[in-house]
Amino acid sequence: MSGNTFGKLFTVTTFGESHGLALGCIVDGCPPGLSLSEEDLQHDLDRRKPGQSRYTTQRREADQVKILSGVFEGKTTGTPIGLLIENTDQRSKDYSTIKDQYRPAHADYPYMQKYGVRDYRGGGRSSARETAMRVAAGAIAKKYLKETLGIEVKGYLSQLGPIKIETVDWEEIHNNPFFCPDASKVAEMEAYMQALNKEGNSVGAKIAVTATGMPPGLGEPIFDRLDADLAHALMSINAVKGVEIGAGFECVEQKGTEHRDEITPQGFLSNHAGGVLGGISTGQDLIASLALKPTSSLHLPGRSVNVRGEPVEVVTKGRHDPCVGIRATPIAEAMMALVIMDHLLRHRGQNGGLQHDIPVIPAAAPGASTQA
Amino acid sequence: MSGNTFGKLFTVTTFGESHGLALGCIVDGCPPGLSLSEEDLQHDLDRRKPGQSRYTTQRREADQVKILSGVFEGKTTGTPIGLLIENTDQRSKDYSTIKDQYRPAHADYPYMQKYGVRDYRGGGRSSARETAMRVAAGAIAKKYLKETLGIEVKGYLSQLGPIKIETVDWEEIHNNPFFCPDASKVAEMEAYMQALNKEGNSVGAKIAVTATGMPPGLGEPIFDRLDADLAHALMSINAVKGVEIGAGFECVEQKGTEHRDEITPQGFLSNHAGGVLGGISTGQDLIASLALKPTSSLHLPGRSVNVRGEPVEVVTKGRHDPCVGIRATPIAEAMMALVIMDHLLRHRGQNGGLQHDIPVIPAAAPGASTQA
Amino acid sequence: MSGNTFGKLFTVTTFGESHGLALGCIVDGCPPGLSLSEEDLQHDLDRRKPGQSRYTTQRREADQVKILSGVFEGKTTGTPIGLLIENTDQRSKDYSTIKDQYRPAHADYPYMQKYGVRDYRGGGRSSARETAMRVAAGAIAKKYLKETLGIEVKGYLSQLGPIKIETVDWEEIHNNPFFCPDASKVAEMEAYMQALNKEGNSVGAKIAVTATGMPPGLGEPIFDRLDADLAHALMSINAVKGVEIGAGFECVEQKGTEHRDEITPQGFLSNHAGGVLGGISTGQDLIASLALKPTSSLHLPGRSVNVRGEPVEVVTKGRHDPCVGIRATPIAEAMMALVIMDHLLRHRGQNGGLQHDIPVIPAAAPGASTQA
Amino acid sequence: MSGNTFGKLFTVTTFGESHGLALGCIVDGCPPGLSLSEEDLQHDLDRRKPGQSRYTTQRREADQVKILSGVFEGKTTGTPIGLLIENTDQRSKDYSTIKDQYRPAHADYPYMQKYGVRDYRGGGRSSARETAMRVAAGAIAKKYLKETLGIEVKGYLSQLGPIKIETVDWEEIHNNPFFCPDASKVAEMEAYMQALNKEGNSVGAKIAVTATGMPPGLGEPIFDRLDADLAHALMSINAVKGVEIGAGFECVEQKGTEHRDEITPQGFLSNHAGGVLGGISTGQDLIASLALKPTSSLHLPGRSVNVRGEPVEVVTKGRHDPCVGIRATPIAEAMMALVIMDHLLRHRGQNGGLQHDIPVIPAAAPGASTQA
Repeated sequence: MSGNTFGKLFTVTTFGESHGLALGCIVDGCPPGLSLSEEDLQHDLDRRKPGQSRYTTQRREADQVKILSGVFEGKTTGTPIGLLIENTDQRSKDYSTIKDQYRPAHADYPYMQKYGVRDYRGGGRSSARETAMRVAAGAIAKKYLKETLGIEVKGYLSQLGPIKIETVDWEEIHNNPFFCPDASKVAEMEAYMQALNKEGNSVGAKIAVTATGMPPGLGEPIFDRLDADLAHALMSINAVKGVEIGAGFECVEQKGTEHRDEITPQGFLSNHAGGVLGGISTGQDLIASLALKPTSSLHLPGRSVNVRGEPVEVVTKGRHDPCVGIRATPIAEAMMALVIMDHLLRHRGQNGGLQHDIPVIPAAAPGASTQA
Repeated sequence: MSGNTFGKLFTVTTFGESHGLALGCIVDGCPPGLSLSEEDLQHDLDRRKPGQSRYTTQRREADQVKILSGVFEGKTTGTPIGLLIENTDQRSKDYSTIKDQYRPAHADYPYMQKYGVRDYRGGGRSSARETAMRVAAGAIAKKYLKETLGIEVKGYLSQLGPIKIETVDWEEIHNNPFFCPDASKVAEMEAYMQALNKEGNSVGAKIAVTATGMPPGLGEPIFDRLDADLAHALMSINAVKGVEIGAGFECVEQKGTEHRDEITPQGFLSNHAGGVLGGISTGQDLIASLALKPTSSLHLPGRSVNVRGEPVEVVTKGRHDPCVGIRATPIAEAMMALVIMDHLLRHRGQNGGLQHDIPVIPAAAPGASTQA
Repeated sequence: MSGNTFGKLFTVTTFGESHGLALGCIVDGCPPGLSLSEEDLQHDLDRRKPGQSRYTTQRREADQVKILSGVFEGKTTGTPIGLLIENTDQRSKDYSTIKDQYRPAHADYPYMQKYGVRDYRGGGRSSARETAMRVAAGAIAKKYLKETLGIEVKGYLSQLGPIKIETVDWEEIHNNPFFCPDASKVAEMEAYMQALNKEGNSVGAKIAVTATGMPPGLGEPIFDRLDADLAHALMSINAVKGVEIGAGFECVEQKGTEHRDEITPQGFLSNHAGGVLGGISTGQDLIASLALKPTSSLHLPGRSVNVRGEPVEVVTKGRHDPCVGIRATPIAEAMMALVIMDHLLRHRGQNGGLQHDIPVIPAAAPGASTQA
Repeated sequence: MSGNTFGKLFTVTTFGESHGLALGCIVDGCPPGLSLSEEDLQHDLDRRKPGQSRYTTQRREADQVKILSGVFEGKTTGTPIGLLIENTDQRSKDYSTIKDQYRPAHADYPYMQKYGVRDYRGGGRSSARETAMRVAAGAIAKKYLKETLGIEVKGYLSQLGPIKIETVDWEEIHNNPFFCPDASKVAEMEAYMQALNKEGNSVGAKIAVTATGMPPGLGEPIFDRLDADLAHALMSINAVKGVEIGAGFECVEQKGTEHRDEITPQGFLSNHAGGVLGGISTGQDLIASLALKPTSSLHLPGRSVNVRGEPVEVVTKGRHDPCVGIRATPIAEAMMALVIMDHLLRHRGQNGGLQHDIPVIPAAAPGASTQA
């Protein structure tokens, strides 16, 4: 029940500040017998880490993860997996300006009101650097889901500021620094980001995440619905302000005959539900979307107050992502994987002993769209 | 950790099926000394209950709540509050048709895949009737928050199908059957609903919920952010497909200079954040928005399969809301109140002993908008 | 995580005061497909209920349980099971004496210090009447464990005040009002209780509980050890002051060569461990023992203070058990069953997908004792 | 809810194997503003660590703890505190013998049955080495309780095999390697341990733990009683087989007039309750006792089987404590401190806003015993 723990059976508890000695987490409840090495985690960590392109912060964070426990002779043992990333790029700098100021749209002020104290170095605990541990933990869930059930979780950037993608080519995502699945939009995004950098401003973004190969039956009917837990997971990512499942806000204007996903023996005919009905997976692709606000750290001055309530002008120096959404895809994937993993174990706990002999409806009838 | 429990310190656990003997819930963790009677709960239950207008289902559900424990001589004692609503309108009808069919966009199929069995009478546990208990529990939280801290939680319908409201007049909400705060739209909504009923179709809706009088400092920094818990809470309501905090999906196209809420000694100059930064309340109004899908129970036939995987044509008879969003406002208020209440207790637990002597920033500078 | 909830996957949340309208509980996480009727619960409720003999309180409590949800067509559906017992014997009596007094060894004073208020009628929430719901919930767990895995949970009175049993005859337990497994001690117990009643005093007791047919592998290695959760469960029963697993306090004087349960291919040679090593079941019988203090409600006057801190002489009138231990056996069984059930589901959640191909050691070699 | 987490608001999650790279834990929910340094934790770690005398294992474990997060400029920030102890004495040795054997009275067999795999080096996760992290976490709780409320938690060895202490002199505890509070017994204990070492055998022990300065009102009435949580906490320590609160098993033979702690305006007249009534603290000293079994690692051969079910003779070589109870006192103190701390925060959460104006009964009347 601690606020730094996610999950109920497959749990992830993180610690660490942006400029502290290290980040770490404990993954508890992992099934035994899963092959696991540091390389398995490093892949997604490298996808998230900064400095991969000119469009993200130029901070150097090696983000080398160490597995401290829970793996023996290359396999998980069922005991807690301790993970650690030492902080290597803690530039000693002068924080005297920021120390007393509340940066607009940052967590400085609410932290002070909550705790009466805050670690102001690089945002402390509120830094998105914490998400590195989520990515590492999520990589364990991803591996288990893929190897055991064939479930794959993958995401992409669906909108960068005003630029919306038009097609999804899963192969294209790895070819550009934006996780953009539409090759025709990449040049436009590059130009947009260069102009934005020159302006000293930032912009929002939209990410889509999908799980394919889902079995039906995962989730819970009431509070811990699969979609509610997904909303929790995705909204807990820094800068996220909105979450949609399936058709999302489009359903407001849909009529019932349009929204309902009809079914034939060959499969579902559409997927406006985004793979969840009544809080439980249908076996269709699980589909979520999230909105990330523009980075709050800007070179352009903004009005604020200091800890004494006096007016100040805040200018954030340093190396910041002009669009935090660009690096958010692996984080969103990790959070979705954690939710599915947790619900898989929960489902197995309650229903494990039963053999349901119920015909399965294919995820999509031939020719049907799997998109929301 | 049960899937039918919400909250960590102020917890609500519900039970009951649509056509079972009763619905009930246990509210645990309520502070002692709060004046509480059944009338206090009945007010919101009556706002939610069906049959209040021609635009909602004509089922008669008295929804009379009984307090079975936890209140003594008119005050809460700190022990669990047991609540019960007996089901009085269980029409004995023939369920033989629905029994073997999976209604499109309903939870029938995933329930069968999860449990191998389901109570098919009126949707069983997946019926929105369960939300009556949330409303009752939420009324306790609302009362405590208002009496103790002056926090008020209130919502309205912001969009009905294609019809969007243009102004928010809090007094108007009580004057029409839609919880619509814009008197100029009510006639249009009435006409729309009549046409929809004639067509035998349904439509989606959008709801906004707000808490005023919020203190700064409520929430948690990482997984149990105030906004993440809100997303969990609101997405757990039947038919909800999207949740926004503050600017929500609009932030995708916003630039940093536009989105960041600047601060002056007189208060915040805007509220795109929706009252939360870094997962913790700022003291601004807490603002959330949710999308509800169109009702899935339609008189218009839809394609589906039965439990043996054979094709069937489904027609849902009976009395159903053509727009579930119309009755959702009190439910959304209840869920927001539960989240705030839980975080208030959690905050007090961890930080209760401290006296933070930190100047408070007013929620809104004179002339500033409190809307997202 | 509410204090009135027990368990992590198979959870029981109770409510209700001794003299309120009703007692109730919600059992969440029950596997679907279990045959369940009210009669299945009533059997253990009747074993616990007062007025069964002249040696327990003469209060009449019918303790008729109703299943309000979660069971459909005679089988559990996997959704929460709501249980209710209406209070029928709420004698309207004058509580003005007790209202302002702190009865010695009762919870009156700490309740007031915790909550500032208490329901003083019949002990309110602190009454052992609450355990009726544990017995009802435990009966569900017992039934599942027996039908699914052949696990049986049963207990007996091993000591009544100074009278210790010498043999355990499981058949004898049902033949006397003490749950005493040693027929040769029953007359002595009867005489002792009659003298005690005449004296107006009360006495302590010791209970043993055992689970047979245990599979190896249930439990957790660190905090949620099977034995630690058992200790939690048993110590949470009213009046319990001590819990032992296996050899218990006898192990203090044991040497390692004596205590360690040696193993042969034919099975374990002894069971000092009580069926748990390192927090995980060994497949031997699970054995626990608990001490219950003498009833605090006495006809003999005792010194105390009232709510204003003034000295008073307290005499408890009314109908009370002179030895609460006598009725505690079904409660202890219920709590052990809940713990095993919870760990079964937890184990299945984490390890369900694995097939361990590891030879099983028989619980007891031929001729070996299964007793601690 | 992970099995490696303890507590609900003040939570401790541990990881690490005996011979892995490191042990660690995350302490979440710590109130902000507490002065904290590594020295504060090291004191209790040094009291627990092996090699302090000839009567404990001669393994060298520096047990140097590092604080990785949650403390800034010498004070806790309210964010999770990451703690790490690197393993420095991992002797590379040949584990081929132990690898396939189930050592009697060890967790080897149940681990294999649970997980299908185990880290057999030095007991892996089942090693008592894990308790180092509990001691470190407990030191934080101890410091907060003492500085904020004046609560002190301290323990002692009350029995070593057959040798029982007769007096408690709190100053004496620091003067001998046994945590023995009775100077007159130390020589006898030394002689006993030397004979035991020569014999190659081990023996059990009994520990007492007490909290003084307790406020009334901490705890919960039903499942999460203060004493039930204590039983959970203490039984979760390696080798513990029994837990008593207050009079413990002595209450079985007590009469009600003897057991009940009478009250006068000058205070409680005795403390058989051990400071808890109805699950809630009375303000008297909190008193618990625990039994630890003899070490299972013996030089004397024992019968067992290997992983293939074949008979083997097991001889444990290496450096082991002949009496694990000797080093258990700081661990028991830590667990009690964690329980009190958690309940303090929980109490504050639910009741924080109330000012109870109720006269406090002194913990002990002049001349009354505070012992159970």
